[in-house]
Amino acid sequence: MDSERLVELLKKVRARSITVASATAELRHMPFEDLGFAKIDHHRALRQGFPEVIMGLGKNPEDIAAIVRAMRRRKSNILVTRVEPEKMAKLKHLRTGLKFHSAARAATWTRKPIKISGKGTILVVCAGTSDIPVAEEAVVTAAMMGNRVERLFDVGVAGIHRLLDNHRRLESAAVLVVVAGMEGALPSVVAGLIDKPVVAVPTSIGYGASFHGVAALLGMLNSCAAGVTVVNIDNGFGAGFAASLINRV
Amino acid sequence: MDSERLVELLKKVRARSITVASATAELRHMPFEDLGFAKIDHHRALRQGFPEVIMGLGKNPEDIAAIVRAMRRRKSNILVTRVEPEKMAKLKHLRTGLKFHSAARAATWTRKPIKISGKGTILVVCAGTSDIPVAEEAVVTAAMMGNRVERLFDVGVAGIHRLLDNHRRLESAAVLVVVAGMEGALPSVVAGLIDKPVVAVPTSIGYGASFHGVAALLGMLNSCAAGVTVVNIDNGFGAGFAASLINRV
Amino acid sequence: MDSERLVELLKKVRARSITVASATAELRHMPFEDLGFAKIDHHRALRQGFPEVIMGLGKNPEDIAAIVRAMRRRKSNILVTRVEPEKMAKLKHLRTGLKFHSAARAATWTRKPIKISGKGTILVVCAGTSDIPVAEEAVVTAAMMGNRVERLFDVGVAGIHRLLDNHRRLESAAVLVVVAGMEGALPSVVAGLIDKPVVAVPTSIGYGASFHGVAALLGMLNSCAAGVTVVNIDNGFGAGFAASLINRV
Amino acid sequence: MDSERLVELLKKVRARSITVASATAELRHMPFEDLGFAKIDHHRALRQGFPEVIMGLGKNPEDIAAIVRAMRRRKSNILVTRVEPEKMAKLKHLRTGLKFHSAARAATWTRKPIKISGKGTILVVCAGTSDIPVAEEAVVTAAMMGNRVERLFDVGVAGIHRLLDNHRRLESAAVLVVVAGMEGALPSVVAGLIDKPVVAVPTSIGYGASFHGVAALLGMLNSCAAGVTVVNIDNGFGAGFAASLINRV
Amino acid sequence: MDSERLVELLKKVRARSITVASATAELRHMPFEDLGFAKIDHHRALRQGFPEVIMGLGKNPEDIAAIVRAMRRRKSNILVTRVEPEKMAKLKHLRTGLKFHSAARAATWTRKPIKISGKGTILVVCAGTSDIPVAEEAVVTAAMMGNRVERLFDVGVAGIHRLLDNHRRLESAAVLVVVAGMEGALPSVVAGLIDKPVVAVPTSIGYGASFHGVAALLGMLNSCAAGVTVVNIDNGFGAGFAASLINRV
Amino acid sequence: MDSERLVELLKKVRARSITVASATAELRHMPFEDLGFAKIDHHRALRQGFPEVIMGLGKNPEDIAAIVRAMRRRKSNILVTRVEPEKMAKLKHLRTGLKFHSAARAATWTRKPIKISGKGTILVVCAGTSDIPVAEEAVVTAAMMGNRVERLFDVGVAGIHRLLDNHRRLESAAVLVVVAGMEGALPSVVAGLIDKPVVAVPTSIGYGASFHGVAALLGMLNSCAAGVTVVNIDNGFGAGFAASLINRV
Amino acid sequence: MDSERLVELLKKVRARSITVASATAELRHMPFEDLGFAKIDHHRALRQGFPEVIMGLGKNPEDIAAIVRAMRRRKSNILVTRVEPEKMAKLKHLRTGLKFHSAARAATWTRKPIKISGKGTILVVCAGTSDIPVAEEAVVTAAMMGNRVERLFDVGVAGIHRLLDNHRRLESAAVLVVVAGMEGALPSVVAGLIDKPVVAVPTSIGYGASFHGVAALLGMLNSCAAGVTVVNIDNGFGAGFAASLINRV
Amino acid sequence: MDSERLVELLKKVRARSITVASATAELRHMPFEDLGFAKIDHHRALRQGFPEVIMGLGKNPEDIAAIVRAMRRRKSNILVTRVEPEKMAKLKHLRTGLKFHSAARAATWTRKPIKISGKGTILVVCAGTSDIPVAEEAVVTAAMMGNRVERLFDVGVAGIHRLLDNHRRLESAAVLVVVAGMEGALPSVVAGLIDKPVVAVPTSIGYGASFHGVAALLGMLNSCAAGVTVVNIDNGFGAGFAASLINRV
Repeated sequence: MDSERLVELLKKVRARSITVASATAELRHMPFEDLGFAKIDHHRALRQGFPEVIMGLGKNPEDIAAIVRAMRRRKSNILVTRVEPEKMAKLKHLRTGLKFHSAARAATWTRKPIKISGKGTILVVCAGTSDIPVAEEAVVTAAMMGNRVERLFDVGVAGIHRLLDNHRRLESAAVLVVVAGMEGALPSVVAGLIDKPVVAVPTSIGYGASFHGVAALLGMLNSCAAGVTVVNIDNGFGAGFAASLINRV
Repeated sequence: MDSERLVELLKKVRARSITVASATAELRHMPFEDLGFAKIDHHRALRQGFPEVIMGLGKNPEDIAAIVRAMRRRKSNILVTRVEPEKMAKLKHLRTGLKFHSAARAATWTRKPIKISGKGTILVVCAGTSDIPVAEEAVVTAAMMGNRVERLFDVGVAGIHRLLDNHRRLESAAVLVVVAGMEGALPSVVAGLIDKPVVAVPTSIGYGASFHGVAALLGMLNSCAAGVTVVNIDNGFGAGFAASLINRV
Repeated sequence: MDSERLVELLKKVRARSITVASATAELRHMPFEDLGFAKIDHHRALRQGFPEVIMGLGKNPEDIAAIVRAMRRRKSNILVTRVEPEKMAKLKHLRTGLKFHSAARAATWTRKPIKISGKGTILVVCAGTSDIPVAEEAVVTAAMMGNRVERLFDVGVAGIHRLLDNHRRLESAAVLVVVAGMEGALPSVVAGLIDKPVVAVPTSIGYGASFHGVAALLGMLNSCAAGVTVVNIDNGFGAGFAASLINRV
Repeated sequence: MDSERLVELLKKVRARSITVASATAELRHMPFEDLGFAKIDHHRALRQGFPEVIMGLGKNPEDIAAIVRAMRRRKSNILVTRVEPEKMAKLKHLRTGLKFHSAARAATWTRKPIKISGKGTILVVCAGTSDIPVAEEAVVTAAMMGNRVERLFDVGVAGIHRLLDNHRRLESAAVLVVVAGMEGALPSVVAGLIDKPVVAVPTSIGYGASFHGVAALLGMLNSCAAGVTVVNIDNGFGAGFAASLINRV
Repeated sequence: MDSERLVELLKKVRARSITVASATAELRHMPFEDLGFAKIDHHRALRQGFPEVIMGLGKNPEDIAAIVRAMRRRKSNILVTRVEPEKMAKLKHLRTGLKFHSAARAATWTRKPIKISGKGTILVVCAGTSDIPVAEEAVVTAAMMGNRVERLFDVGVAGIHRLLDNHRRLESAAVLVVVAGMEGALPSVVAGLIDKPVVAVPTSIGYGASFHGVAALLGMLNSCAAGVTVVNIDNGFGAGFAASLINRV
Repeated sequence: MDSERLVELLKKVRARSITVASATAELRHMPFEDLGFAKIDHHRALRQGFPEVIMGLGKNPEDIAAIVRAMRRRKSNILVTRVEPEKMAKLKHLRTGLKFHSAARAATWTRKPIKISGKGTILVVCAGTSDIPVAEEAVVTAAMMGNRVERLFDVGVAGIHRLLDNHRRLESAAVLVVVAGMEGALPSVVAGLIDKPVVAVPTSIGYGASFHGVAALLGMLNSCAAGVTVVNIDNGFGAGFAASLINRV
Repeated sequence: MDSERLVELLKKVRARSITVASATAELRHMPFEDLGFAKIDHHRALRQGFPEVIMGLGKNPEDIAAIVRAMRRRKSNILVTRVEPEKMAKLKHLRTGLKFHSAARAATWTRKPIKISGKGTILVVCAGTSDIPVAEEAVVTAAMMGNRVERLFDVGVAGIHRLLDNHRRLESAAVLVVVAGMEGALPSVVAGLIDKPVVAVPTSIGYGASFHGVAALLGMLNSCAAGVTVVNIDNGFGAGFAASLINRV
Repeated sequence: MDSERLVELLKKVRARSITVASATAELRHMPFEDLGFAKIDHHRALRQGFPEVIMGLGKNPEDIAAIVRAMRRRKSNILVTRVEPEKMAKLKHLRTGLKFHSAARAATWTRKPIKISGKGTILVVCAGTSDIPVAEEAVVTAAMMGNRVERLFDVGVAGIHRLLDNHRRLESAAVLVVVAGMEGALPSVVAGLIDKPVVAVPTSIGYGASFHGVAALLGMLNSCAAGVTVVNIDNGFGAGFAASLINRV
C-alpha cells in the first residue's frame, strides 16, 4: 500500500519535472505517514479484526454517543469500556446494534463477524465475586479481539480446593488472565500450577490498607512464581488486550 | 503478695501513730507499684517461665554483654534477638551458658528448665528459605516461653502441592505462625485450610516493589481469609510471643 | 464422612470391574473435594456453630437480600457486616428473623441457638466514641461465634486513669480486641497491663495526617508491647473472628 | 508417568489384600504428589529444557556454590542470577562448566544442549546503557530457556530517531522485553509502534524522585499503549521467563 | 480535695472496724480516681476557665445537639469545632446562648465570663484567604481559653513585603500560630524574623502534589528555622490549644 | 517612581523640621513598600499587561463574583481559572464583558487590549483528549499574558508518528508547554526532538496506579531529556504563566 | 541600637551635604539590616545567651573544626550537634574548652557562663533507652540556652506504671519534651496527664513498618491529647530550642 | 546539510537507473536519520557550543575515563557530573585538560573556547551551605553552555533579610536557578520578589521527614508564587541546562 504522494514525487523526479534538490526538500516536508516509513499504524493492527476502543471512564454519555456515531462510519467493530449502568441507560437510544454487557460495564457493536484468530483458549480467572466486573471486561475485550474465552470465577486462595478442583481447566488454557483484589495472591498460586503466561490484574476491591488496589498490585509485582506479568489496577481491558496479543504469537 | 510499705502504713493508721490526713497524703506519694494497684508488672508475667528479652538490633556487642551480665543476677532465662553473626562472635567470651542459635540470629541462656505451659503445638511455617531467620526467631521465642514448637519451612504458594502435602501437620497445630516475604500470600492460603489462629509475619525478603516488606505486610493485612492477624515486618519475636500468649488462653 | 464416589471407585477396582490403569486415570479426574484429601473445607469449620458471613461493603441492598435468601436454605446462622443505615432501611422487608445492630452496622439472623464454645471472655475495648461502630462489629461477630463478650468503651490514652480504673476487667479477659483510631496507642498500653493476646484494630477515625487509619495502623504494628497482633483498618469483623479462634485454642 | 505408590495401592484393592475402607484411609494420607493429581510440578515444566534457577541476591558465594553443587547431580542446566562481580570472583573455583556473563551479573552451566523451542525471536530493548545489566539478565534467561534472542540497546525516548531507525527489528520480533529506568516511557512508545506483546521491566536507574525505580514502574503500569504488561523493578529474569512462556503459546 | 471514700476507709482502719488485710484488699479495688493518686484529671485543668470541647467532624447535628444539651448541665463554657454551615443551620434551634462563628466553622456558648489568663498576645497568622477557616478556629479556641488574640491574615511568602510591613506586630506577640497550605513556607519565614514560639498549622489547601496538606506538613516539619513546632493538618483547634498552654508557662 | 512619604521625610530632615533621631525612628515604622526598598511589587509586574488572576478552585460562584466586581475597579484584565461549568452558569449574570472559555474551564474579561509582548510562539502540546482542559488553561493564560499561542493536541507517545508529523511546528516554537497524564512520557519525547525550553504539566488523567497524576509527575521529573522543567499536577495556569515569563527573557 | 550608617546619611541630609534625591537612592541601596528595619536579626536573639549552633550531620570533622575555629572569634558559646563518636575522636585535637557529650552526640564550648533565663524546668522524657541520644540532644540544647533541665527516661507506654510513678515530676515541669520511637504514643499519654505544653519528638528507633520514624511521627501528629506539638524525626535540637522559647514566654 | 544517501537515490531515480517502485522500497529501508526528516539530532543542538555530558553517578572511574577518551576524538567540550572526590582522584591520570570543580563534584574539558550565547545573566541562588554542591553543578553546567553565571549562596528563608539585601542582584538576572533542601521554600519567596523565570531545584539536604528531598520537592511544586518550574531532586545539571535554554529564547 504505497503512499501515492511519495510515488508521485518520485515520478516527477524521474520525469525531471523537479530537481533533486527540491525533491529532497519536499520529502522533508512530507507527512511522516506518507513516507510509509515506519508507518507503524497502530490502528491498522487494530483493524485486522480488532475493535475500535472507547474508554468510557471520565466521559459523559453524550461524548460516548458522539464518538460511537463517528466510528460507525469507519465500519469497524466497537468496544466501549467502563460504561456504568446509569451511563448505559443514557446510551440506550443509540441505534440498534449496540449490545450492553452489564457485568463487564461494557458495550459492543459488532458490524463485522468476529473471526477467531487466537491460537488457544484465554482463561479468565477471578478471586471473588466483587472482582467479576474487571474479569468480565477482560472477557469481553478478548472475545471482541477474536479469541476463545472461558471463565473460572470465585476461586480465591482462601479456599484453595476450589481452584485445585479446576486444575485441568487451568492446564488446558493457552493464556491466563488472573484477576484479584485484596492481597492479590491468586496469580502466584495459579502461575505455580501451570507453565503458561499469566497476566495478572489487581482490582481496587478491598478497604483500609488495600489502598484501592495497591496491596494487590504490589502482591502481584512481587509474585514468587515466575511467568506473571501485571497490568494497572482494574485494567481488565489491558489484560484482555495483552492476552490477545500473546495468544497470536 | 502484698506491698510491705502499704501494709506498714495501714498498720500505723490502725495504731493511730499517724493521722488519717497524713496517711492520705503519704498514700498519694507512694510509688504506684507499691499500692499493688493495677499491678501492671509486665515483667512478672514474663518471669512466670518467660525469658527476659534483649532486642539486639541497634545495640553493639558491648551493650548486649553488659545487659546479659546484669540480667544474670536476676536468675531468669534470657533471650537475645537480632544478634548478627559478627556480633555473636564478639559475645563468645561471655561465660558458658549462652547458647547461640545462628539460624535465628538469637542467643539464649537457660538458667531454669523450661516448663511446657502452652496447651498445643505452635507450628511455624515459612514460604522460602530466605524467610528462615525470621521463622527461627519465632521458633526460639516460642520454645523459650514454654511451648512445643514445630517447623514447616519452604512451602511457598508458588508450589502449593508442598503445602498441601503437609495438611495434616497444619491441622494438628493449635496456633500457627506463618512467615513470608515477597507477596506475602502464604498466611491467606494457610488460614483458608484450617480454623486455628494464624499469626502472620511479613519479611523484608524481596526487592524492587517489595519495598522492604511492605508488599508482604499489605498482603497479609488484606488477607481474604479470616483469622489472620499480623505483626511488624521481620518481627519473628513478636509473632512467637503472641503465639505463646494465644497458646495459653 | 467418606466420599461416596471414591468408595464406589475402589469397590469397582476390588470387583475388578475396572482396571487399575483406568482407576488411576479416573482418580486423577475426580474433584479435589471428593477425595476427602486435604478437604479442608473451611466452611465446614464455620458451620460448626459459626455463622455464614456476608460482607455488605460494596454490595447494594438487592444483592444482600438475594444472598440472605439463598443462605436461608442452608439453615445456618447469618451475619451481615457493613450495612449502613440506609441499606438497613432497604432490608427491612426481609422476613422476620433478621435483627439489626445499628451501632455495629450489622444484621444477624439466628436460626440455631448460639452455643458458647469460647473458653473465656472476649473483652472489646475502644478508645473513643467514634470507634464504637468498629468495636461493635467485633462484639457482634464474636457473639455470633459463640463467645461471651464484654465491652469497655471510650478509654483512650489521653485520659489514662479511665483505663486504669478498669484494670480488673482487663485482667479477667481471656482475649482482648482493642480498637483505636488517630494515633492508635491504646493497644500498646493495654498489652503492657496484661499478659493476654491483644488483637488490635486500627480505625479510620481521624483527619489530616491520620491518612484514613494509616497512622493508627502503623502505631499498632510498631507497638512496643509484645503480644499485639493487628488486623486491617476498620476490620472489626476480622478481629472478632480471630479473637474467637484464639478463644478456642 | 504414573505414581507407583498409587498403582500399588489399587493393585492391592484389586487383589483384595486390603479393604476398600483402609484403601480410602490410605489414599487420604498419601502425599499429594503421589496421587498424580493436579501434579502441579512446576519444576517438571522447567526441566523440559528449562534451566534450574538460583536467585543469587541475598545469598553469599558459599551458599550459591553449595546449591550449584547439589543441582549438578540432577543433570539439568543451571542459571544463577544476580551474581555481582565480587561474588563471581569467589565462585571461580567451581569446576569447569560454569560460565560467567558479567554484563548480566549471571552465571550458567549448560549440561544439556539448549534446544530452541520458542517460536519467534525475543527482542530485548533497553533505554540507556545503565539499564543493560537488567536487559542482559533477560537475554541470558530467555536464551537458557530455548529462545532466539536479540538485543536493541540504548534507544531511549529522548532520542526517538534511534528507536525509529530500528523499526524493522521491532516489527520482526515475536515478543519484546523493554527495559527502562528513569521515567520508564520506552515501553509505551514501543508498544505504540508494533502489535506484539511487550513485557516491560522498570529499572532502579535514576535518582531523587525516581524512588529506586518506582517512577519507571508507575510509568509502565499507566502506559497509554495497550499490550504492555509489567514485572517488578530490575526483574530481568522474570521478564525473560515470561517472554519465554509467551513465545511458546 | 480529698477522696471521701479513701478517707472513710482510713478512718475505719483507725477505728479498727476493719483489718489491715481487708483494707489493703479494698484499696486495690478502689477506683483509680478515688485514690487521688496521679488523679491527673485533665478535665479539671480544662474547667479552670477552659471550655468543654466538642469535635464536630464526623458527628451529625443531632449528636452535637445532644452533647451540647448534656454539657449545659455542667455549667462550663462550650466550644464546638468543625461545624459546617449546613450543620450550623440545623443547630439554630438550640436555646439562645449558642453563638456561631461562621468563618471558624465553630460555635461557642459562654456561660461564665472568660477571664484573660494568658500572659501575652497570641498572634494568628495565615498565608492565604483559603487558610482563614483554620486560622479562625485557632483564634476562637485561644479566645475561649482566656487569651488576647490578634489576627494577621493573607501574608503569604510570595508577597513577602506584606509580611515585613507587619514586622512590629510579629515582634510584639508572645506566641504565634502560623497557618499555611500549599508549600507551607510561612512558619519558616516568620520564625526567622522573631524569637518567639511558633506553632505551625499546615492546611489542606492546594491541589495535585499538595496531597491534601502533606506538602505543607512536610515543609513545616523540615523548617530551617528553629523554634517551629507543628500540629496535624487543618488542626486549628490543636494549635490554639497548644498556644494557650504556652501562653501560661 | 519615588515614594512620596520617604521623600517628604527626607525633606523634613533637610529642613531640620525633625531631628535625625526621630527621622530614624519614623523610617523604621514606615511601611516596607513606602521605602521603595526591594519594592518587589509582584503585582506591578503583573499589571504590565498581565491579567489579575482569580483561582476559582475551592471558591463558590458568589465569592468569585464578588472578587471580579472588586477587580473591575482596578481596570486591569481579569483571568478566572478553574471555573467548572456549573459555576460558569451561575456567573452568567455578571455584566457584559466576561467571556467564558469552556474548554479551559476559565473566564476572562479583557478591558485593555492585549499587546503581544512575548518574543516567539508558545506551543501547547497535549497527549490525549482528556488532557485538553489543562492544556487550554495554559493556552488562555499565555494568551492573556500577551503571547502568540498555538495548539498541538492529541499527539500521545503511543502513536508517535502523529507527533513526528508535526515536527516542524515543534521546531518553530520558542517555548513549549507539554501536557500529559497517565505515564507522562510526552515531555521526554518532545524535549528529545527540539532544543527549546519545555514546561511539563502532569495531569490527573488516569486511574489506579496513576494515583491522580503522581505517575505522570514522577515521569516528568525523571525525564531522561534535559531541558524539561515541571509544574504541579493539572497546573495549566502555572505552566502558561512560566512559559510567558520565559518568552520574555 | 541605631545603625550608624543610616544616622550618618540622615545627618548629611540635614547638613544638606547631599540632596534628598540622592539620599533616597542611597537609602535604597543600603543593606537591609542597616535600616534597622524589621530587625530580623535572628542571630541577635541567639546571642542573648543563646549558643551558636553547628549542625554536624553531613559535615566532616575538618569542616566542623573550621567552623568552630571561626566562631571562637565571636566569643559566643558554641553547640555542635550530631557529632557521631568517630567524628568526636577527630575533633579531640581542638583546643581545650570543647566538651563532648557522648550520650547526646554533641559538643559544647562555654565561653560565657550560662545564665538561667528560662522560667521553669524543662522536663525531657523518653520512652526507651534507644531514644536517649535524641533526648540528650534536647537536654544539652535546652541547658545551653539557659534552662533548668531534668530527665525522665525509659518510661514507655508498655509499662505505664513507671510513668505514673513519676507523675509529680511531670506535674512540676513548666514545659515537657517527650521523645519516643516505634508507635510514638508517649506524648499522648503524658499530655493527658498534665496541662503543660508538650513538644513531641519522634525518633527513628524501630524497624520494618516504623519507616525510620514515620510511624512515631504520624502517631504524634494524630495525638488524641490536645497540647502536643511536633518536630521533625530525631530533631532533639529543635525540641530543646522550641522548649526554650516556650520557657521564656 | 543534505543526506548524501538520499540525494544519491533521487539522482538515480532522475537518471532512471532505478524504478520508482524500487526507490520507494529503498526509501523505506533508509535509516531515519539519512532522510534528514525530523532530523531530531539532539546532539547537534548540544554541539552548537554545548558540551558533551557524562553523568558520573553510578559509573566507576574506569567507565568515565573510557567515555572521556572516546569523546576526545569528537573535539567537543566535555562536562562530567557527579564525580565524587574519590572518583576524581582516580581520574587525575587523564591527560592534561580535564579540570576538576570540586565544589560542583564535576569535571570539565574545554577544547573549544566557550562563546557566551545566553542573553542575560543566570543567577544561581541557594538556601544553605549544604546545598552548594547542587548549586555549583548548575553553575558549571550553565557556564559550559555559554552563559554569564552569578552566585548568591546561603540566603535561606529563615534569615530573609540576607535575601532582601540582595534584591538588586535578583532583579538584574534574566533567569534564576534556586536551590534549596529541607522545606524548599526559597523559590516561592524569590519568585514573589521578581518577574523572571525561576527554575527550582530541591536538594536531598535534610533528615527525617525531609525524605531525602521529597519535602523540598513538594514544597516547590506547590509554590504559591507563579513562574516557578521544578526539576528532579539534586538535579543541578538539569536546572543549569534548562536555564541555558531559557536564556536563549
